[in-house]
Amino acid sequence: MSNITIDTGFDSGSIEVMTVHQASAMLRLKNDHQSEFKQWFHFRVANTGGRELVIKIVGLNDSAYPAGWPDYNACVSEDRAFWGRAPSTFDKDEEGGTLTIRFTPTCDLVWFAYFAPFSMERHHDLVAECASTEGVTYRKLGETLDGQPLDCLEMGEGETQVWLYGRQHPGESMAEWWMEGALEVLGNPADTLGRALREKCRFHVVPNCNPDGSRRGHLRTNAKGVNLNREWAEPTAENSPEVLAIRNAMDDTGVHFAMDVHGDEAIDAVFLAGFEGIPSWSDEHGERFYRYQRILERRSPDFQTAKGYPKSGPGKANLTISTNQVAERYAATAMTLEMPFKDNADYPDELQGWSPERSKLLARDCLGALLEWLESDEG
Amino acid sequence: MSNITIDTGFDSGSIEVMTVHQASAMLRLKNDHQSEFKQWFHFRVANTGGRELVIKIVGLNDSAYPAGWPDYNACVSEDRAFWGRAPSTFDKDEEGGTLTIRFTPTCDLVWFAYFAPFSMERHHDLVAECASTEGVTYRKLGETLDGQPLDCLEMGEGETQVWLYGRQHPGESMAEWWMEGALEVLGNPADTLGRALREKCRFHVVPNCNPDGSRRGHLRTNAKGVNLNREWAEPTAENSPEVLAIRNAMDDTGVHFAMDVHGDEAIDAVFLAGFEGIPSWSDEHGERFYRYQRILERRSPDFQTAKGYPKSGPGKANLTISTNQVAERYAATAMTLEMPFKDNADYPDELQGWSPERSKLLARDCLGALLEWLESDEG
Amino acid sequence: MSNITIDTGFDSGSIEVMTVHQASAMLRLKNDHQSEFKQWFHFRVANTGGRELVIKIVGLNDSAYPAGWPDYNACVSEDRAFWGRAPSTFDKDEEGGTLTIRFTPTCDLVWFAYFAPFSMERHHDLVAECASTEGVTYRKLGETLDGQPLDCLEMGEGETQVWLYGRQHPGESMAEWWMEGALEVLGNPADTLGRALREKCRFHVVPNCNPDGSRRGHLRTNAKGVNLNREWAEPTAENSPEVLAIRNAMDDTGVHFAMDVHGDEAIDAVFLAGFEGIPSWSDEHGERFYRYQRILERRSPDFQTAKGYPKSGPGKANLTISTNQVAERYAATAMTLEMPFKDNADYPDELQGWSPERSKLLARDCLGALLEWLESDEG
Amino acid sequence: MSNITIDTGFDSGSIEVMTVHQASAMLRLKNDHQSEFKQWFHFRVANTGGRELVIKIVGLNDSAYPAGWPDYNACVSEDRAFWGRAPSTFDKDEEGGTLTIRFTPTCDLVWFAYFAPFSMERHHDLVAECASTEGVTYRKLGETLDGQPLDCLEMGEGETQVWLYGRQHPGESMAEWWMEGALEVLGNPADTLGRALREKCRFHVVPNCNPDGSRRGHLRTNAKGVNLNREWAEPTAENSPEVLAIRNAMDDTGVHFAMDVHGDEAIDAVFLAGFEGIPSWSDEHGERFYRYQRILERRSPDFQTAKGYPKSGPGKANLTISTNQVAERYAATAMTLEMPFKDNADYPDELQGWSPERSKLLARDCLGALLEWLESDEG
Ligand SMILES: [Ca+2]
Ligand SMILES: [Ca+2]
Ligand SMILES: [Ca+2]
Ligand SMILES: [Ca+2]
Repeated sequence: MSNITIDTGFDSGSIEVMTVHQASAMLRLKNDHQSEFKQWFHFRVANTGGRELVIKIVGLNDSAYPAGWPDYNACVSEDRAFWGRAPSTFDKDEEGGTLTIRFTPTCDLVWFAYFAPFSMERHHDLVAECASTEGVTYRKLGETLDGQPLDCLEMGEGETQVWLYGRQHPGESMAEWWMEGALEVLGNPADTLGRALREKCRFHVVPNCNPDGSRRGHLRTNAKGVNLNREWAEPTAENSPEVLAIRNAMDDTGVHFAMDVHGDEAIDAVFLAGFEGIPSWSDEHGERFYRYQRILERRSPDFQTAKGYPKSGPGKANLTISTNQVAERYAATAMTLEMPFKDNADYPDELQGWSPERSKLLARDCLGALLEWLESDEG
Repeated sequence: MSNITIDTGFDSGSIEVMTVHQASAMLRLKNDHQSEFKQWFHFRVANTGGRELVIKIVGLNDSAYPAGWPDYNACVSEDRAFWGRAPSTFDKDEEGGTLTIRFTPTCDLVWFAYFAPFSMERHHDLVAECASTEGVTYRKLGETLDGQPLDCLEMGEGETQVWLYGRQHPGESMAEWWMEGALEVLGNPADTLGRALREKCRFHVVPNCNPDGSRRGHLRTNAKGVNLNREWAEPTAENSPEVLAIRNAMDDTGVHFAMDVHGDEAIDAVFLAGFEGIPSWSDEHGERFYRYQRILERRSPDFQTAKGYPKSGPGKANLTISTNQVAERYAATAMTLEMPFKDNADYPDELQGWSPERSKLLARDCLGALLEWLESDEG
Repeated sequence: MSNITIDTGFDSGSIEVMTVHQASAMLRLKNDHQSEFKQWFHFRVANTGGRELVIKIVGLNDSAYPAGWPDYNACVSEDRAFWGRAPSTFDKDEEGGTLTIRFTPTCDLVWFAYFAPFSMERHHDLVAECASTEGVTYRKLGETLDGQPLDCLEMGEGETQVWLYGRQHPGESMAEWWMEGALEVLGNPADTLGRALREKCRFHVVPNCNPDGSRRGHLRTNAKGVNLNREWAEPTAENSPEVLAIRNAMDDTGVHFAMDVHGDEAIDAVFLAGFEGIPSWSDEHGERFYRYQRILERRSPDFQTAKGYPKSGPGKANLTISTNQVAERYAATAMTLEMPFKDNADYPDELQGWSPERSKLLARDCLGALLEWLESDEG
Repeated sequence: MSNITIDTGFDSGSIEVMTVHQASAMLRLKNDHQSEFKQWFHFRVANTGGRELVIKIVGLNDSAYPAGWPDYNACVSEDRAFWGRAPSTFDKDEEGGTLTIRFTPTCDLVWFAYFAPFSMERHHDLVAECASTEGVTYRKLGETLDGQPLDCLEMGEGETQVWLYGRQHPGESMAEWWMEGALEVLGNPADTLGRALREKCRFHVVPNCNPDGSRRGHLRTNAKGVNLNREWAEPTAENSPEVLAIRNAMDDTGVHFAMDVHGDEAIDAVFLAGFEGIPSWSDEHGERFYRYQRILERRSPDFQTAKGYPKSGPGKANLTISTNQVAERYAATAMTLEMPFKDNADYPDELQGWSPERSKLLARDCLGALLEWLESDEG
């Protein structure tokens, strides 16, 4: 039978084909444009003929997060709607670090990705649906270097200014699945959680902070190869118009509570990172974040605090990072939410690993925790 | 234009037509078969011709819960999928107590009900879907007097025996909407809340304890006019085979946690009732329930504890009621969940009032509270 | 493992259990109430435990259509939405004629039926959806002996009076699937076929002429055991109020074209029966029907003319049958459409046999043929 | 209130903004890349604030088809799923030809397009779903200049080689809606029309011959500004790899029946164009096409023969056009199907005009006509 073919000519498609033989292929990652980062992949395999595919992605020791590959299983879909996992193994000593994916599809076509993609078309469907909900206002914050709009959805009549934003790192597509889940809660008139939050807060939701990187199939950067989450101290129209637009809008509204939604390549858990080490740090300020963290831990079986990032020492916070900048600049309860590319090791799901479905449900838990945090604060 | 026509010849249909003139009708409630209870209604109006309907239901001072009518708005649907509310007013001095419903439908047909119906066909769809989920076992507990099966769905590998059952009072259809919401959590392999609960518990879910009353359009009783929630002390095959079957199955498994799901006609709130006054009462036993209640209050904006039923005095508990019997018989943390027919006055929804959608979301919150209760108990 | 259990306590449920042993059961058909007809069955098997079920329905030589069982495969569903076929064999010499159904379900519950059921709840959903379509009028023609409404949907601004009605024989549920397909064409504003027909015709659609028989699980009769398709000469309020109501409404409108939709138990083909032998027969009248038949044969791969019923000789038509009565009474182009319970032998479908899906698509072809018939008549 | 904003940074987005003032905008079309053609537009308007939008597209006398603008109403959508029409007027004397679109959206965001877009994401969903159907084979014919795959779906076991292909002109998105309709028939195991055709034919379906032009928002050309439907005589890898790949694949299979699906900017009707004037013309060959055309006219209310293109004189056929080349090269019954951008004037639909829904239904009629054509040929 003839060779499989491999394509990437679609939204967020990315891989480089080295060799193909029959149903086997040797591939390598592509760098983000004008950047050294590489980790994301998204490609289609055709002409499978029902054979077992053996896909090797090599050279991974040079990827952005080599620790992301052990215990990682590639995402796979035949219908582009349900994303499962294909059993994968990592050998750091093979061809400079090789992930070997084995999968026997039931049909001629199959899609693989680092995580279930969230396309710009789906983004626009989400924005359109949300904007058509009563009480929701659309606001265009700005434009990207590739000429895409930077979309923000706003709702709620309360005093507390809440900013939810995600996918600064475009390959962390779970962030936009999370946003879809959050917007379903906030836009559903029959959901009392959404209604209660809209009474107390004004929400500003940016489902995708980096549309260019998303469409181009980048892991961490925008059209110019810039890591947006290192631009919050001094964003520029030339290099980081996305951050500049968001930060300007935040300057207008002020920020009381902010969640910047991400994915983590290596750690097999959901966790939060706070803003330890900012110049204006106070224990009272920090406690507001810790209290939220404790509430979320109590509420969500997918959330934990044992695993996570080390905290910055006093005065050592990197203010180019969004959470630190936002906490410092607005005295906000700011935080970074990290979801795994792999799975939550406490409740592993062999079929799907961490998934779009779980990302969406986690958003509901995060919003439930926000309401409990707001209410207990009043008491 | 000609008179509207009114029909009840379908699942849970019930009303009696006194007079019809043009687009106006005078109706009265029907008693449950062999019973004095009456409160439920469900009828279809045809030939509306786009006119404003003026529907009067009279004689309501003799209904089971006269306090149910002030501030109540009738449920209405044109597509039998979305149930809104039709503005309604109650005058206790008009014709022995009259609810006047005014509604201008957009089409020739419109359905009215005391609450959004949950038909036996939908019941079977729910049971079929749930039974086809991996890890779920179907168990037929028994048969009703009308020859319908009493369906139970079981899942989970844990030690804690949890019984969730509802709609002993068949007109309280919100109970089965709640069950649909609960089964969606428990049966969804991508929902970590369901997975965590299935690890800790063995669930026994009876979505509808009273299929005969449901199909017949009863408020509170089964095919023989028996109020099942007064049969738990001495259920009989003749009068209450439903309770007998469930209680026998509980005797087999034992019960650690039990929630009996209901609707309340008068109180505009969601609340729990416990088992105060049972012979074996201990504060430690009671505290298990109160602790659950506090957790749920913290988690769910639709739940509160200010409004509710008075507690029985020491030794005064009525052991014919399920919650008391189950708490006494199995030393279970047993409780009755009550949802409003009207609305939650704390978060009123003009469009839908209390609704199927909210009942389903509340189920998720109740299960989230159960997990938190189980986990905090361990700590 | 324990015995399977068998239930029929739901819409159109019908079977009698003789014996059950493990995963095997011996069953027999139930007569229609107050009637000798028996052929329909619809039951649920629980507690399958993944075992191969061996279901025997015995005594079939006494059923209404013994010729219906050879080459028949029972309909089966696990989700009550998709209905496939379970391999079945008929032995006329075993226990007075036995159909043996073998099926290994993937879950604990499985439904079997003579044909994919169309419940009264689905009927009401269909009526509600159609009635909410712009330009559609609902008309209640009358009421059944069990108190159900006889529903008629009307649409179109043309001169040609078209009556489409089905399920006089309630066990012929394919007739109502056909109606659902027809109403989707006629009610879809984006479907030019529907729009063209509505310009030329006034449609009167009775999706279910026999709701009582449907709900009771009858094959051929109403609540009183009366075969409605033998009542068209002299329908009475006592025995056949359904026919009386429809015929009265036809008297009001007149009838130019009528299709009475049925299922045939024995013949493995789709065919039409006309009105040969009516007193007023003329070849010109007959040719109108034959012309329609030729057009449909040309258009629809599922329709044929080789197999079918013998034609009545001159003057021998049975005027108690709807098609004959309607042709005679209104000089209408009247016809009976028959779909198979088995399959269309020309295009057999091992998975589903004749199916709801095909019944719906056939309706579209029948309406396409009607437009072509009307247009070619004008030319 | 502030100005509306206008965006095109998405799949098939195209317009140029000249001025914006409040809720009014003056726009002009963009040329296809490296081409003089311009006619397609697709843009999003934000910040509408519920105001009446007045959108003027000027300079249209220089567009590819100036006759396309009189009686044309722009397509509009708020949810990106349902596409209606916004009342539009054309004044050839205003600003070099101006289309004025007036529309009052119900929400903050609204999309306008020349015709309902069919995105590449939807294309991949369609390809994935179809490829997962039993009996369907995916075949990658080649690759575009922008690196997108050229997708072909194949099915059927018959001798007759049928090629269905569309969207050589990428702005004629109705062509791909037609393809979606055709693939639903051909891939549906319950559709006897599809099954009958698969018995007689081998289908080769290319839903989108010009992915690059589609994604770029072109009207008529590929990434290099080449009109593919003028490349069939001598396609080249440099300029028209799409045509080269398709024609090579046709050379492999031969072609008996071919339909090239298009949209027409000016004519308000559905029609076919044949291959008059090809060198090898014979009346018998031509009659095969005319016979198909007559069958389709008889079957489809949306199809007609009064309006259409003039026929080429003997020997005057342009062999660079697909239909002529395919008819000549393979002695195929080849044809071009044209659907309107405006509406079918015989059955105008004020709400939607010609629409995706109608394009899909037309595909079913075309396939029904193909079966009748094949069957009557045999007789
Ligand atoms: Ca990250
Ligand atoms: Ca109650
Ligand atoms: Ca029959
Ligand atoms: Ca064209």
